[in-house]
Amino acid sequence: FAANFVGVATEFATWYYKTIDGTDRSGLSVVYRPHSMMTFETNQVQGVGAIKEKLISLPFQKLNHQISTLDAHPSGESGSIIVLITGQLLIDDNEHPQKYSQCFHLVPEGGTYYVLNDIFRLIYG
Amino acid sequence: FAANFVGVATEFATWYYKTIDGTDRSGLSVVYRPHSMMTFETNQVQGVGAIKEKLISLPFQKLNHQISTLDAHPSGESGSIIVLITGQLLIDDNEHPQKYSQCFHLVPEGGTYYVLNDIFRLIYG
Repeated sequence: FAANFVGVATEFATWYYKTIDGTDRSGLSVVYRPHSMMTFETNQVQGVGAIKEKLISLPFQKLNHQISTLDAHPSGESGSIIVLITGQLLIDDNEHPQKYSQCFHLVPEGGTYYVLNDIFRLIYG
Repeated sequence: FAANFVGVATEFATWYYKTIDGTDRSGLSVVYRPHSMMTFETNQVQGVGAIKEKLISLPFQKLNHQISTLDAHPSGESGSIIVLITGQLLIDDNEHPQKYSQCFHLVPEGGTYYVLNDIFRLIYG
């Protein structure tokens, strides 16, 4: 049941991490909507402006995400997709990447998808 | 925006892990429906029967899940909830727990919730 959904999710995640790892994180704001919600560690924000502000203000100069696993399911009749990613994140000039987990809920809109839910957690220890 | 949703998700996850860590994992089947999907590591199954069979056939005698983080978002107008859990899992007589990440999509039904999507991944390394 997952073939197309994994393809869409992989394409989305590839773009998302390329953008957040790049020089202008504000480019991510195009995939959020006024009712979108983001949790980054213990911080929760809602709406394009608040999410964009949070992404820009993350206290990291350099990020490098590497996906370890990506799974995607259709989430009902609407064509929405639930994505669970686990991966490794290299922050600034650290030598050792940190593990993380991120869940996206992608909702179809006009031939593309927007992000309704985005939950990010570092895996400690 | 997350207060009630976190409460529901915490109650669900507490019951879910207590049941899967207990002596009869088949008790979990009550929260799945014919269209429910489960990914456990690289295995994907759909439907109550297939999910129940997968859960029962997991090659572990003893499990002990401990939640490290739990985040929950409302996932649209329907009252559905997206949950991202990170935690530690002690398997059989191993001394060291393994880290894991699990995403649930809970859908309201008759005063309670069922699981539409369940994605589980161990975090290696």
